[in-house]
Formats: sequence, C-alpha cells, structure tokens
Amino acid sequence: MKNISFENIKLGDGFWLDRYNLNKNSSIKSVYERFEETGRFDTLRFNYTEGKIKPGVAQDSDVAKWIEAVSYLYASDHDCCAEEIKIIDELVESMEKNQMADGYLNPYFMQLDPENRFVRRPAHELYSAGHLIEAAIAYHKATGKDRFLNVMLRFADCIEKAFITEKTAKFQTPGHEEIELALVKLYDHTGNKKYLDMAMHFIDIRGTTDEPSIDANVVNLKYDQHHMPVREMTEAEGHAVRAAYLYIGMSEAAQRTGDVELQNACDRIFDNITKKRMYITGGIGSSGMGEAFTVTYDLPNLKAYTESCAAIALLLFCLSLQNKRLDARYGAVIERIMYNNLLSSTSADGTAFFYENPLEIHMHSLEKETCMADHKRSKLPIRTRQKIFQTSCCPPNINRIFARIGDVFFSEQNDALVINQYAALTLNNDNISLEQKTVYPLNGKVTIKATNNKYKKVFLRIPEWCDDFEITAPVSYRSENGYIVLDGMTDEFEITVDFKMSAYFVEAHPNVRYDCGRAALCYGPVVYCIERCFNDYELNALTVNSDCEITVVDNGKNKLPDLTLTAGLKKEFDGLYRKKSSDEEQVPLVFKPYYTFANNGECDMMVWVNCR
Amino acid sequence: MKNISFENIKLGDGFWLDRYNLNKNSSIKSVYERFEETGRFDTLRFNYTEGKIKPGVAQDSDVAKWIEAVSYLYASDHDCCAEEIKIIDELVESMEKNQMADGYLNPYFMQLDPENRFVRRPAHELYSAGHLIEAAIAYHKATGKDRFLNVMLRFADCIEKAFITEKTAKFQTPGHEEIELALVKLYDHTGNKKYLDMAMHFIDIRGTTDEPSIDANVVNLKYDQHHMPVREMTEAEGHAVRAAYLYIGMSEAAQRTGDVELQNACDRIFDNITKKRMYITGGIGSSGMGEAFTVTYDLPNLKAYTESCAAIALLLFCLSLQNKRLDARYGAVIERIMYNNLLSSTSADGTAFFYENPLEIHMHSLEKETCMADHKRSKLPIRTRQKIFQTSCCPPNINRIFARIGDVFFSEQNDALVINQYAALTLNNDNISLEQKTVYPLNGKVTIKATNNKYKKVFLRIPEWCDDFEITAPVSYRSENGYIVLDGMTDEFEITVDFKMSAYFVEAHPNVRYDCGRAALCYGPVVYCIERCFNDYELNALTVNSDCEITVVDNGKNKLPDLTLTAGLKKEFDGLYRKKSSDEEQVPLVFKPYYTFANNGECDMMVWVNCR
Repeated sequence: MKNISFENIKLGDGFWLDRYNLNKNSSIKSVYERFEETGRFDTLRFNYTEGKIKPGVAQDSDVAKWIEAVSYLYASDHDCCAEEIKIIDELVESMEKNQMADGYLNPYFMQLDPENRFVRRPAHELYSAGHLIEAAIAYHKATGKDRFLNVMLRFADCIEKAFITEKTAKFQTPGHEEIELALVKLYDHTGNKKYLDMAMHFIDIRGTTDEPSIDANVVNLKYDQHHMPVREMTEAEGHAVRAAYLYIGMSEAAQRTGDVELQNACDRIFDNITKKRMYITGGIGSSGMGEAFTVTYDLPNLKAYTESCAAIALLLFCLSLQNKRLDARYGAVIERIMYNNLLSSTSADGTAFFYENPLEIHMHSLEKETCMADHKRSKLPIRTRQKIFQTSCCPPNINRIFARIGDVFFSEQNDALVINQYAALTLNNDNISLEQKTVYPLNGKVTIKATNNKYKKVFLRIPEWCDDFEITAPVSYRSENGYIVLDGMTDEFEITVDFKMSAYFVEAHPNVRYDCGRAALCYGPVVYCIERCFNDYELNALTVNSDCEITVVDNGKNKLPDLTLTAGLKKEFDGLYRKKSSDEEQVPLVFKPYYTFANNGECDMMVWVNCR
Repeated sequence: MKNISFENIKLGDGFWLDRYNLNKNSSIKSVYERFEETGRFDTLRFNYTEGKIKPGVAQDSDVAKWIEAVSYLYASDHDCCAEEIKIIDELVESMEKNQMADGYLNPYFMQLDPENRFVRRPAHELYSAGHLIEAAIAYHKATGKDRFLNVMLRFADCIEKAFITEKTAKFQTPGHEEIELALVKLYDHTGNKKYLDMAMHFIDIRGTTDEPSIDANVVNLKYDQHHMPVREMTEAEGHAVRAAYLYIGMSEAAQRTGDVELQNACDRIFDNITKKRMYITGGIGSSGMGEAFTVTYDLPNLKAYTESCAAIALLLFCLSLQNKRLDARYGAVIERIMYNNLLSSTSADGTAFFYENPLEIHMHSLEKETCMADHKRSKLPIRTRQKIFQTSCCPPNINRIFARIGDVFFSEQNDALVINQYAALTLNNDNISLEQKTVYPLNGKVTIKATNNKYKKVFLRIPEWCDDFEITAPVSYRSENGYIVLDGMTDEFEITVDFKMSAYFVEAHPNVRYDCGRAALCYGPVVYCIERCFNDYELNALTVNSDCEITVVDNGKNKLPDLTLTAGLKKEFDGLYRKKSSDEEQVPLVFKPYYTFANNGECDMMVWVNCR
C-alpha cells in the first residue's frame, strides 16, 4: 500500500478547490507578511544586529513549514509562487553562506548563543532541523534545485556526529520530536540508509536515557514521551503535537524496517487515541496545561485545547498508517479531521488562525478568569482567530497541509486503486486517468470515470457516518474492511455511488462525562454547532429533541447547508432553584458547520447540545 | 424582632436532638483531642519552648471557637462538660497571667514574633481577637465567671488604641473580618457603646484605605472585601468566609445604629447571594482559588469549594437579617443550610469534618490531577472527612453552631411569636411554655401545644419547598411574607399543621450551566444524592425521568428515608462516538440524603443528575 501523492491530483471546481485556493491565495501571503514583520524570515538571513528583532528559538521552523507549503503549491502549479520562490532562493543562499563549517545550522544559537549548540534539550534544535529537512526535500522535489537539500544533508551529517558517532551533544533525545519523521523522508528521498538508521536511533533511545523532562510545569516524563521505551507504549501521552510527530516517525520507520514491534505500538496508540482521547472534531490534546493528552475519556469542551498542529499531526499519522494496511478507520479519522478541526483552524478570509479549537464558548465564563490571579493568563481558549502568535507553529502548518491536501484522496496496492476521500478532482498517473465528479460534502453522490486504467480492483471507502449507499458499477461489489471492493475492472469504467447524506445526532461514549445528556448534530462528515450570534439564547438553556425534524437549508454552490430545527428553551425565573417544571418555550435554531464558528465576532458557541 | 436564644430551647427526642448529641458527645471531644495533639491548646498556655510545636498564626481562634461551643453546651446543661470547663479555666488563667501590660494578647506574636504586633495585615490578629471575644462572652454568660471577659475587654481597649485613638498599628483594616461582629456582641453584652463605635470604625474604613490586598494569588482587592466602601456593595465578593463575617457585622451594627444605608447594602448582598451565588445545599464560595465567590451563576459541582465555615457564616448572616424583619426567605436559606451543607460537614460518627462540601465526586477526574504539575496540589475537594486540617477553622466552627442550633427556631416581635424552623422541642420563657411535637424532617406534621402564653400572634414559616399544607388552629389564618399568621391567641392553644412532604425534583436557573439538563432530587428541605457505592454505575451515564415514580423507603426512627426510582443507563460501546441511539437499560437507583455522602469510602457522588 502507498498513498498516491498530491502531484498526481488536480482538484476540480468544488469545496476543496475553494479551500485549496484560499490557502494558496490568502493564507500563504498572510503568514508571509506576519513572519516578515516579526523577523522570522530575517532569522534565516542571519542578519541580526543590535536593535533588530532577536531571532527566537525555533522560529526557523516556522519559515521552514512555509517554504514546504510554497514548494507543494509550486509542485502542483509551476505558474504560481514566483515571488515566494525568489524569497526562498535568497534564504537558501543565506543558509548556504552562513552554515558552519561542520554543517551546523541554527539561526538562534549561531547568532545569539553559539556556546550552547546542542546543550539545551528544550531548545528545539533538532525540531527545527527536522522541519528544514522536510522543507528542503519538498523544495528539491518541486524545483529540482538541490542547494537547500545539500545544506540540510550537511546538517544531518553534523547531527549524526554530535548525537551518534561522537556523542558530543549534551543531551541524547530531542525535547520536541520531528526529526525522526524528517530523517525517514530524507532516507526515502536520497536512498541513503544512514538517515533511516538515524531515525531509528532517535526513536529507540527515547524513554531509555536519564534526561530530565522538558517542562517544569510537568510532573512526569510523559510531557515529551520520555516516560518509557516507545515499543512499550499503549497510550497517547503528554504534549499532543510532540507525541503525534513521534508516532508518525515510528510508523514511517516501522514500515521501512518491517519492525513489527514498533508497528504494534503505533497500532495500539492509534486505537487509544481514536477510542479514548479524540474529540468529535478530530482534535487531540484536551488540556492547555502542557498542551497535552490527559486521561481516558477526559474531553472537556469549554477548555478543549485541540491545537491545530495536533490535528494536522494526527491526520499525518493516519495517512502513514493508511500506507500500511487497508482499513477504513484511518480514512474515517482523516475525514473527521479534514472537515472539522482542520477547517476550523482558519478564518473565512484565510488570513487568521486558531491555535486552539474549542468545542464550546461561554463568554460569561471568561469573566471568572479575571477575578483570580491564577487566571491572569487566560485558561480558556481565545475566541478570535489570530494572524500570528508568539509561538506561531500552527499557521504555516496549516499552509503546508492544505497545500498537500491532495495526498489524502487515493492510495494504491499492487493492482488496486483505493479511493479514501471524495472530492471533485482528477487523478492522472501511469496507471489511470480518473475523474471524480461530486459536490461532496454537500451531498454524497460521486461519479467516477476512468480511462487508461491498469488497476484490476477499485476500493471505495464507505464513510463512517454512512448507513446506506447505492452504487452502479460495471461489476458487482463486496465489502472489506469498511471499503466497497470492485474486482475485475477494465481499461475504462464508470462508477456512480451515492452515500446517502443527511443530518443526524451523535452521542459520545457514556464515560465522556462532559457530553452526557448531550448530542452533536452532524451532516455527513461535518460536525455542526450553534452560535449565539445566530441564536440569541443562553445556549445551555436549550434542549433539542433527537427525534425532531431537521431542515437542510441550501446555501448555494460549494457551501455547506444550514441545519434548522425547533428546540426547547428553559425560561429564566427569579431566583436560583425551583421545582422542576416543563416551562419551556419552543424556539427555532440554526446550526452551522462547526468549522465556520467565530467568523462573526466573539460569542457563545456549542457543539454538544442538551438533548432528550 | 429578635431571635429567641437557644438557652430557652430544649430539644426533645428527634432528629435534631440526635444531631445535637453527636456534637456534644463526639465532635467536641474529637476536636479537643486533635487540637491538644497539634499544640493548639498549648498556644494559649503560652508555654512554647524550643523543640515543641510552634504556635501557628490564628490557632488561638480555633481554640476560641471550641471554648464558645463548650460554653453553649454548658449553658444548656450545667451537668455536662465538667472536664472541658476545667481546661478552659486553666487557659483563662494562663491568658490572664500572660496578657501584656497594655492588654495585647496573641500567642503567636507574643511567643514567636513580638516585634511585629499589629504590623502584618494578613496575620489574623484581629480575627483571633474577635473569636476570643465571642468565646469570652459565651463563657461569661454560661458560667458567670468574668476573668476571660475582662482579659478580652483589656485587649479590646488595646485594639482601640492601636487602630483608632493612637493609630500605632501598621495597617488599618483586618485582613480577615470577624472582629466587627464580635465588637457588636461585646457592645450588647457590656452595654458600652464604644465597642459598637469600634465595630462601625472597622466596617466603615474598609475599602477606603490604601492597603494592599492580602493574597498574592489574587488579582484584585475583592479577596478581602477591600474593593469598595461597604455601603456601595451590591454583590458578594472574594473569600466567602471573610465576606460573610463582614456581612454579619454590617447587619448587626446596622440594627444597633439604625443605619439604613448599611442595612440596604446587607439586603442587596443577601439578594445577590441567594439569587445568584448559592448552591442548592446552601453552600457559598464556588472557587477553591481564593476560597471565593466568583461570578454570577458560576456554581460548578465537581469543584464546589463551599467551605463549611462559609455555610455557617451565611446561616448566621440570615439569622441576623431575620432579627430585622419578618420575611420567610431568611428562614428558608437557614433551613437549606441546616439540612444540607451544614449536616454534610460532619461524619456519621461525629469525629471527622469536611472543609469543602462538593456536590459531585468523579474519581476518574482525580487521575487527571496527577498528570500535570500544576495539579500536584489537588484542585478537586478531598473525598474523606478529616479529623483535623492544617488550617482547622471548620471543625470548631461546626462545634459551636450545633451547640447553639437552638437559636434558629424562634423569634419574637412585640406580641408575636415567630416559628422559623420545626423540630421536636420545648420553648420556655417568660412569655410562653410551648411544646413542638414532630418528626420533621422525616415528615412535615407538627403539633404545637402552648400554656402560659402571652403572645397574641403566632407566625409559622411555610417551608419554601411546601406547596400544600393543612392546619388546625384555634383561629383562622392568613399568610404574610411566607408565614402563616394566627391572630388572637389566648393563654393556652394547640395548633397542628401538616406541611405535605414528598420527594420532588428541583431545577436550577437556566444560566447555571453546570446544572442544565439536570435535576436534583429532594425530600422536604433535604437535598438527595446518588453515590456509586450504592449505585454501581457510571453516574454520568444515568438519566432520570422527572415524571418517574419515586418510592420513599422508611429507614426507622430519626433517620431520613431512602428514595428509590428507576433510571435509564446508557450502555457502554466500543469507540467514542456513534449515531444517537435509545440504547438504554433501566436500572434501579437509591438516593440518600446528600449530607450522608462519603460515609462509606471514597466513590463517585452526584447531586445534579441528568434528567429528561
């Protein structure tokens, strides 16, 4: 099995092309401008002088992700990004010129703290290196220019010396994972096995050395997954982005080495995340404290941390697992993330981003935070998407994931084409010319026409939310691992499938105490929410009836429908307590896709609504 | 109007005599032993030497409250407490002997930090002085011995000099209120108006001086009610015990001085507390951070701080307001506290106490506290009553409130007797010999027989929970301010009233988001709960139907009944989310009085249950 790369995919007019273009035309530029303003690009120009903005630790990684995003966009469309490519070329020249003789490259340490190269474990040197390696590979693939790649190969060799052969570094495992997965990519790209060995070194040594934990706020070693050898892990623990980056590295390495034990650890962790520790939006990391996983079934809505980067990392972990075996669960989680936590990360105009993606906003609860000192720093997520953050990892991560969104749609295995996600697009590679026509996720009808087909089998993932579908195909079908399997396809074929899409209520496992007595309204893969700006009631005072009639209100081309229904509203009364009454008013509610929330000012929002 | 003092009341065989005796026979001794073990009594023996337990700040106030409790018990029964009286006499001798020439008396500062008398505002000197004054008055009243009182009169004069006439103290307002109400008591007891003036001084200066706030954890001056002049206050703010002690002092002083502005502030605050900031149990102070009120309708159940001392203080504030005017709301809040937050404060055997009285326990949530450093100190209340605490203000406060519980039952006004609470008891004073026969709160039937009656009117408070009652009386009745009014009573009379008592569900104001979609089961004034030790289900997965049949299960003499019903239990399923189903099992539940929770080991508990 392997995923078919985005280079082979061309999005057609539809929901995802709109979203792709928003990133390409708006987000990429917005992030560039904010990063230029805040000196992030300057860090890689190595031009710091007294009085200028000081390079920040790991800020080179922000730029690296932006370069990676631009590279993906350019790979799909050589007519785009001319200015951005020029900027990157200049940065590459600067990196090349400033790289130290031994290959070391880190703008923070080189310009501000040269004595402490590879000394401070929390300082993200290997994390930044990983992102720069990913960027260099993407740039080489997109442009054919190899100077950036060569810079990073020299740095990788420097890292190998410091951490493996000569062990001059003052710590042994990176405080923030990322380099593991980047080194596997470097192995794939160069074919040089030493980079795979380096990845395995960093994976295997984790949890076995005596290094202190990273964060003084953290009571144990779970924060950076340093609490046990990775092969023994059964639960997703600690800082969610660190964790998921590690899991991607583990999964990718296991697939190259055939390491069954490591693969089993990945499988256990995937089960643990998706069955115990994941929001309905695909978000992970429920606690702002440590940006971390906490305990099983602990999924608070109001304080949901659910960092955009963590959802992206989980998506990439699933994409890696999907490379390993045919199982619709991976595509289901990817779809859950795509249409919810990932889309919510970005404002409607593409210029602003969420770090946290809460599932509930209650403005009155914010007042509480101002009345006690411990709450000076808001513990509740911010309610407005921001153009930039102090730690601005999310915006360029959002840039790069949308630029390579084409990666999620297809995989292939021997003589089989596997369709994992649905969108209006064309796929062209040596094995097939395929066109998918659909307005998915506005409805579930998909028409697939292929010519020049060499695949014998076609697999179509049955969406997790779909109870009923109709299919017309040249051959009869069977089901396997959550996929429709069509066997005996010929040179040309046409398939139409209708995954019957409607609005429906979802309930959470009864042990998720925050969601008990509540339900979330969904439409196909899309989680919906109510916002006070469209429903001016105390949202907590509303109760929907799960049997109620739900009206699907068309919003036009490429726009998801509104869902409307009538709900009960508890009336206010004087005092705090009274005998339970059935004193309810029936009020109309409009639900809109969760991901669109907070585009109309700060107000109360709720995914999990009281439900009888 | 004035409340009739407990000295005139004798509890008869029934619910409250059992509870009174538990305090008298068990709690008083348990607190004594723990205080002796921890050196608290030694602080007032002024016998600290190197190597012994150091006197702690304000630990003399713990002993003072215990003395006050013993005095009340002794006042009601001169045959009791012989040993305790001997201990107190020795302490008084020690205080007398060690009191400084200028009247100053504080065992902590005198023995450990004599240079810093009246220097450190957070050091509770005036708080301790207040409690010692209250104790001295109670002891004088109970025993007729005046040495303790004289010690405290000298200390009061010393305080007047330091804070008012000579202003040598380095702060102006006490960091923890208490002395204000004590000084009003001292005025009542001595008739010396200067003590009332001192009380007014401390009340009026609050919020007008430039002193820093007490607690570095607190962002503003609300913590110790130093954020505005008291007359301007409209909301209960800050540390709940400090706040309520201030409000008692304000109310008591206003009634002596006829200060309408001050009385109005008290009335506004009472409204704010009872309509916006009080738990169904009568608990106040919803945040462990600052032990404080937070914002309107912020009443979390799992993290409810609801300190026992705060409930006691609110009870005393209501008792003071009840002195001012005939309004059944005061008695209703007193009843709510008596049967819920106050009773829950003590273990079934009387030896152990709650500081916090949460409305929900979820053991799994405790695991979360161990996974992050900020949670090293548990933020969730402890689940087992303790014999003593580091700061052990609650146990002796519980001692003294139960010892004077007789204060809550009656008040009088000119020619009227006002019956505020119901219990098996006799009342004997110059105006009446009255016997109340009832098993209240097991049911609501009360028979009142009186002889030697001089009151023309009798008022009977209609319990807030009561929708229906039957009354037989020598005269016809009317209603007034929530009371039944009987006018034209003669020398002897008999009244029988039956406040129809049954189980019923209560709902909270829709803005209390924690309780939305939920209901609390009550029986008369008693709030019930479910505990996992009696109902082995995930309590969050249960849903009761407010129309369900509730069976009242008799538990024998003086014991409240169990309430049983059948509820829906959501079944567990594999994974986290699924389309909403009606997959519920019907299971039997037993509800027991909230106040009995945590007497059978640590387990999940819930007052507000999912309800459809």
